[in-house]
Amino acid sequence: MVDYKNIKVIGFDADDTLWVNETYFREAEAEFSKLLSKYETPNKIDQELFKMEIGNLGLYGYGVKAFTLSMVECALDLSNKNVSPKTIEAILNIGKTMLNQPVEVLDGVEEVLEVLSKKYRLILATKGDLLDQERKLERSNLSQYFHHIEVLSDKKENNYSKLLKHLKIDLSEFLMIGNSLKSDVLPLVNIGAQAIHVPYHTTWAHEEVEEKEKNGKTYNTIETIRDVLNIL
Amino acid sequence: MVDYKNIKVIGFDADDTLWVNETYFREAEAEFSKLLSKYETPNKIDQELFKMEIGNLGLYGYGVKAFTLSMVECALDLSNKNVSPKTIEAILNIGKTMLNQPVEVLDGVEEVLEVLSKKYRLILATKGDLLDQERKLERSNLSQYFHHIEVLSDKKENNYSKLLKHLKIDLSEFLMIGNSLKSDVLPLVNIGAQAIHVPYHTTWAHEEVEEKEKNGKTYNTIETIRDVLNIL
Repeated sequence: MVDYKNIKVIGFDADDTLWVNETYFREAEAEFSKLLSKYETPNKIDQELFKMEIGNLGLYGYGVKAFTLSMVECALDLSNKNVSPKTIEAILNIGKTMLNQPVEVLDGVEEVLEVLSKKYRLILATKGDLLDQERKLERSNLSQYFHHIEVLSDKKENNYSKLLKHLKIDLSEFLMIGNSLKSDVLPLVNIGAQAIHVPYHTTWAHEEVEEKEKNGKTYNTIETIRDVLNIL
Repeated sequence: MVDYKNIKVIGFDADDTLWVNETYFREAEAEFSKLLSKYETPNKIDQELFKMEIGNLGLYGYGVKAFTLSMVECALDLSNKNVSPKTIEAILNIGKTMLNQPVEVLDGVEEVLEVLSKKYRLILATKGDLLDQERKLERSNLSQYFHHIEVLSDKKENNYSKLLKHLKIDLSEFLMIGNSLKSDVLPLVNIGAQAIHVPYHTTWAHEEVEEKEKNGKTYNTIETIRDVLNIL
């Protein structure tokens, strides 16, 4: 039985929890695939881009700039260094379009934040490009609900432990809400805090977890963010 | 007369204050210039790359990934979209080399941090790529001296005001030490805190300030970081 009566601080993930994100990456990947269609099948292009992103993750980290650099490198590879400068230009423009994208706040989010912010201390914990995340938060008009904003270079157990220690938040008082089992839910449950999973319809392959990682882990899964108000 | 008797918290800039940074950018620019030497003079290439970086600053922010993307875009422009895929590949490798660079801590830094950390709360305030700055801090072995690490998307008055408010640091108790008049010294003096300028031999053109901006501003300039110990 999950019990939230000790919770004082609630952490929210941002991308695909508060606003649309993964959808834009899927669109970008489709466009990239079209640009390189004379070299490979869409399926192979998708696979190679994903491999390139994961290979560069340790060096570049998360976010649109890292993704754009990986697209350029992948285009060189897939074309056997025959890709045209025009295609490279088109790839840079995919990245710029992503960074300029308007922020689409998900349904119910503002209502939930408004209600919860009266009873709990809310913090935002996200990963990605610092500037890009700050810009999205500003465009979303949601920053007023948060006591603290933290952009993390990754969202592993260690990152959360450090953050909670730094903010002097007791593990037993902390609840994280987010769309990624791997980044927003399991690390918290593993360190002894609580988490609620709100799946988004699209998940990046890198964020997928195996069934066995979920075994025996206690957390609630809800269908839409509004359901948070029913269980808290 | 500058007086430091109220100071309780000292902020340090990182790049070119604690460790070498700008030197690597200068080397990267020289390499970029060589790659494109058949299209333009070195001087023109330098100018165009700088313009491109500044033009992209609002969208990309600071750091090596932003710099790499601007180099790729600049190469497309300068070559009138004739640049070879091999050159694009070489540009990506310039960026990767920068991210993999070992961290060279500047002379005297560790000694100064060790002494000051016994008497003051030290914080690190830097801008750039989140992951890259975290990696450099780890490689520098200096993180033990800092109570707080903050990577900012920019270092303007507003960014500092927010940071100090967030960390509950009184303006009159805060001293910032750094190599950039524009980013580490003047914003602090302008909001009523204190700052010490430790010039580095190389300054990015974007960090230069006009003489009139310095007029009437009270801050100390020292020759090497070790001099901090003589005036505090």
